[in-house]
Amino acid sequence: MKKEDLLNQIKSKKSFLCIGLDTDIKKIPKFLLDSDDPIFNFNKKIIDATNKYCIAYKPNIAFYESQGLKGWEALEKTIDYINANYPEIFTIADAKRGDIGNTSSMYAKAYFETLNFDSITISPYMGKDSVEPFLEYKNKHTILLALTSNIGAFDFQTKNVGKNSNQLYEEVIKTSTSWKNSDQLMYVIGATKATYLKKIRKIIPNNFLLIPGIGAQGGNLNDVCDNGMNQEVGLLINSSRSIIYASNETNFDLISAKNAQEIQSKMEDILTKKGFIN
Amino acid sequence: MKKEDLLNQIKSKKSFLCIGLDTDIKKIPKFLLDSDDPIFNFNKKIIDATNKYCIAYKPNIAFYESQGLKGWEALEKTIDYINANYPEIFTIADAKRGDIGNTSSMYAKAYFETLNFDSITISPYMGKDSVEPFLEYKNKHTILLALTSNIGAFDFQTKNVGKNSNQLYEEVIKTSTSWKNSDQLMYVIGATKATYLKKIRKIIPNNFLLIPGIGAQGGNLNDVCDNGMNQEVGLLINSSRSIIYASNETNFDLISAKNAQEIQSKMEDILTKKGFIN
Repeated sequence: MKKEDLLNQIKSKKSFLCIGLDTDIKKIPKFLLDSDDPIFNFNKKIIDATNKYCIAYKPNIAFYESQGLKGWEALEKTIDYINANYPEIFTIADAKRGDIGNTSSMYAKAYFETLNFDSITISPYMGKDSVEPFLEYKNKHTILLALTSNIGAFDFQTKNVGKNSNQLYEEVIKTSTSWKNSDQLMYVIGATKATYLKKIRKIIPNNFLLIPGIGAQGGNLNDVCDNGMNQEVGLLINSSRSIIYASNETNFDLISAKNAQEIQSKMEDILTKKGFIN
Repeated sequence: MKKEDLLNQIKSKKSFLCIGLDTDIKKIPKFLLDSDDPIFNFNKKIIDATNKYCIAYKPNIAFYESQGLKGWEALEKTIDYINANYPEIFTIADAKRGDIGNTSSMYAKAYFETLNFDSITISPYMGKDSVEPFLEYKNKHTILLALTSNIGAFDFQTKNVGKNSNQLYEEVIKTSTSWKNSDQLMYVIGATKATYLKKIRKIIPNNFLLIPGIGAQGGNLNDVCDNGMNQEVGLLINSSRSIIYASNETNFDLISAKNAQEIQSKMEDILTKKGFIN
């Protein structure tokens, strides 16, 4: 998917909401457990009910891997279902991969070819040659971990590095802008770190940011938008648990849709106020 | 597996060789492609032929994920085959995972329960709460990326950080020693960075190091041992491509075994010279 298509979708749906499909077999409504593929059936219901209010889905790969072969099958069916039925949706494999070059090429193949995702999250720790294999794919996007939403972000990401005393996450962002096809990079910045966004926007004014941490983790939507929006919106705000686990009843999908619509509605206000839509 | 069992295996096999199962469907002997599961059948032949000479196998998860469902099935069969037939072998899921706490718990479940690996490689970028869920498992081991074998290691890992001007990889190692159950940590140090090992041993005298980069990547076995061995050997030296892709003929497994035995023989000399065995 091209960045322009993503922006067009944001304007037409009046939303920049990404829904995280952190589908946990222990948390989905019990009545689904009798079906042949509870994980996929849960995702399908959530997707059918919420796709009007969001512009991206982000399956969290760990939740599928934890179920072994069945989980992998549910993941394949989920991405195929989104691509077949809602091709306008931007898809994110939340995988946080990254390895030496020939291995990263295999991960790129896994998520951009075998599974046809639009993007994947990647850890920067192993540097340039661990990331560039993902950037070789045209119209695919590599979402680099920069400043994450968890408490452990302060262990290393905010440590001062090098001569100019950048913090590590800044060094990661700055260095990555020199990599081949770096215009295909997006960055993970936790919503709990909204105060950092102004500084980050000075380094990367044009790249999209994937912002987890709204909802269960406590980040604030308005703060994030005030500090992080750019001329093309430039934000994908993720919410997982507060949408997908909104109810355990048979109409759980409608409750999830209601929660998604509430966030979409706040986003519509912000997009209007900032002049992106009328 | 307990660390003592690993040391006992090293002494009885006179080897500290780990064989990387980076099984690429494009590189395995062509005659295997007619079988029902070429990836597993290749691994099985390699494992049966080489297990006398090595103490660990390390499937590189990317290579299995790139094949989708079939790849995942081959991975399950491979770990089950090793555990059933060679229970003394230490198994490493080379996955380089790491995410916020509840997600890392899912990865831990995937690799320590669903797939019964003894250990997994983890990226430290997201800090303490992304690693501790793996450390909760007794007799399982978490192998933290510290200083990797690739050129990109110099992008961030060797940058000076903090007030004491440690390099990032040193800061990672030092910080990690304060985490809960840190005695279950091992560390990835590339063989191409052998000169760093003396300094590393001062910080972590007792932990095992997983050393990739011997062979195809150019690291030197003697240099690594002179600088990195501790009182319990403390090294797992990985070789992947130079062993598993030694031949494309029908007797490829015997050629792989021959290459593994050559390395084992060098290791036996070193273990004897250093007084670990008679």
